[in-house]
Amino acid sequence: MNFQSFHPPRRILMGPGPSDISPEVLASLSRPAIGHLDPLFIGMMDELKALLQYAFQTKNEFTIALSAPGSAGMEACFVNLVEAGDKVIVCRNGVFGDRMVQNVNRIGGEAIVVDSPWGRAVEVDKVEAALKANPEAKFLAFVHAETSTGALSDAKALCALAQQHDCLSIVDAVTSLGGVELKVDDWGIDAIYSGSQKCLSCVPGLSPISFSEKAVNVIKNRKTQIQSWFLDQSLVMSYWSGAGKRSYHHTAPVNSLYGLHESLIHLQNEGLENCWARHQKQHEALAKGLDKLGIKFIVPKEERLPQLNAIYIPDGIDDVKVRSYLLNEYNLEIGGGLGDFAGKAWRIGLMGYTARSENVALCLTTLTDALAQQQ
Amino acid sequence: MNFQSFHPPRRILMGPGPSDISPEVLASLSRPAIGHLDPLFIGMMDELKALLQYAFQTKNEFTIALSAPGSAGMEACFVNLVEAGDKVIVCRNGVFGDRMVQNVNRIGGEAIVVDSPWGRAVEVDKVEAALKANPEAKFLAFVHAETSTGALSDAKALCALAQQHDCLSIVDAVTSLGGVELKVDDWGIDAIYSGSQKCLSCVPGLSPISFSEKAVNVIKNRKTQIQSWFLDQSLVMSYWSGAGKRSYHHTAPVNSLYGLHESLIHLQNEGLENCWARHQKQHEALAKGLDKLGIKFIVPKEERLPQLNAIYIPDGIDDVKVRSYLLNEYNLEIGGGLGDFAGKAWRIGLMGYTARSENVALCLTTLTDALAQQQ
Repeated sequence: MNFQSFHPPRRILMGPGPSDISPEVLASLSRPAIGHLDPLFIGMMDELKALLQYAFQTKNEFTIALSAPGSAGMEACFVNLVEAGDKVIVCRNGVFGDRMVQNVNRIGGEAIVVDSPWGRAVEVDKVEAALKANPEAKFLAFVHAETSTGALSDAKALCALAQQHDCLSIVDAVTSLGGVELKVDDWGIDAIYSGSQKCLSCVPGLSPISFSEKAVNVIKNRKTQIQSWFLDQSLVMSYWSGAGKRSYHHTAPVNSLYGLHESLIHLQNEGLENCWARHQKQHEALAKGLDKLGIKFIVPKEERLPQLNAIYIPDGIDDVKVRSYLLNEYNLEIGGGLGDFAGKAWRIGLMGYTARSENVALCLTTLTDALAQQQ
Repeated sequence: MNFQSFHPPRRILMGPGPSDISPEVLASLSRPAIGHLDPLFIGMMDELKALLQYAFQTKNEFTIALSAPGSAGMEACFVNLVEAGDKVIVCRNGVFGDRMVQNVNRIGGEAIVVDSPWGRAVEVDKVEAALKANPEAKFLAFVHAETSTGALSDAKALCALAQQHDCLSIVDAVTSLGGVELKVDDWGIDAIYSGSQKCLSCVPGLSPISFSEKAVNVIKNRKTQIQSWFLDQSLVMSYWSGAGKRSYHHTAPVNSLYGLHESLIHLQNEGLENCWARHQKQHEALAKGLDKLGIKFIVPKEERLPQLNAIYIPDGIDDVKVRSYLLNEYNLEIGGGLGDFAGKAWRIGLMGYTARSENVALCLTTLTDALAQQQ
């Protein structure tokens, strides 16, 4: 055994995540680690919290970065809020809605599944019917931006419905945060989680999460103990709490948090609305080019995610050959299909730092080249 | 809100972790991210697996880095192996043994606790008595290196007992891996977890874990579903598996894994036995100096961890004042006490890259200075 240091090439990451990371964020990762209870580190965490509140558009006191990927963020929301026997209305229009169902099942909750077609937004009227039919339901859970299909759902309308029916809302914003309009307080979202490696363009491995006061009260008044020690947010709260003494829960991922802090500084400097507009602009340029190539989107125009473009692989084209060609010849990564769309679709990400004109241009020209290879 | 980039000072990290990170490992973190399903990344993961097998001294096929801190590694071992109703003998001689008890309780398992005094090794004869008294127990769980007290337990003897009594062993090696002798296969350890930020001197946030074939079979033949989706290793296995197609589970923490790969290359180059010897040598130099200062160790000599030196705060000395003085005047971090030892002890870490002569010398001279300030 005699392994050498690993030196990755510079890829252009236009898949479903991770997205490209700016040189400044990459540089921040290499700063020397300091202790996770160091006063300077705690000061940085306070800033990070304020920056996350800005990104989420919330004043929620409980707004932190969970020390694990988005899938742990999802689980944190469910295991902290839902108790065995609780009814949860779960909207499923892709892989991640289905994962929500699995989370509810593993807690011993009862998932009432509202299915919408893959590649479409969650059907608001179906959700309303489910809420009416299940007045004892305590939660409404849905995915804002379905990473598996590229569909954007109407989070504002769904959260309004949840409130009307006295349900707390649990929202997956893994791919939406920073890429499309998202307003936690205005829309009345109760529990939300995201990922660091999508539109925030930070390293993978962190999950920004936020709980409303109502959600925090539910956690504080549970009848049963939270099944996970690591994800027990009543313990984590006392580490991230601004007031007084921090109590040790686990060792925070110090250097990754440097990266998240830096990437959120960029978001602050650009401005959230400008960032949303940039994603939309680059999406439109890409869509125009794809249209010229005769490539069809899976999702109807008004339900499309600008940051994740799911498109049908043209007839007679070999999925893996094209993706390998782009990767090997141009260092360009695009994503394959997931779940029902495996082998049938590509997913072209324009997330965060990736959403730039030069990448759109490169993607269109190299894709043209790759398709020509096979014709 | 107008925050600036965060530029931490260079601290010398002589607390209970995180430890100092070498410039080479820090530099590796800033390399560009590549996709978590990129063939080059998968090649790096295969190397990482081999390097972890070397560090753990195991041929276990299931040897990976979990995408979350050591406390999630602990939970992964318990939730994957233990089912509701299972009896687990848990040795408790500090904070982390107690956390094991909490993990068993949250699963609905039955923890049979064997208490040993804090600051001492786990008492092997007491464990043997518990195993004899509980023939239906399925697991024996203990902490190899108790980070809260600085005590090293006899993992070899404890695992031999577990085998004699037909129990699987679950071992916490968060602080021991890389710092003291640890031989997973020779000792017959069935499930083991560690942390990246201790003697491996990588960034915090990853947990190297390994399961024996026997443990993997237990996971495969469970009667009930694993309560955590994120920590369900039957799902994770198919992502880390060397053979054939990798299936997506979650987005791996790409850049942190670069760091772990690099830190394990350093371990490979130094040699495991040399690394253990270096920790012992630096510990002896520190102990000699502390003895001259009249400072007493909590743990008897033959049960001491070289990499984590827990010492009594001398009478009349202000805990926080001394630690703040060292941090503010010399950028030197030492740890406070935890649990029963809060306010009564300091913990001086000599882990991984921190375990160097210059740090021992600096620690001794600045501690002398700090104590003189108060006399």
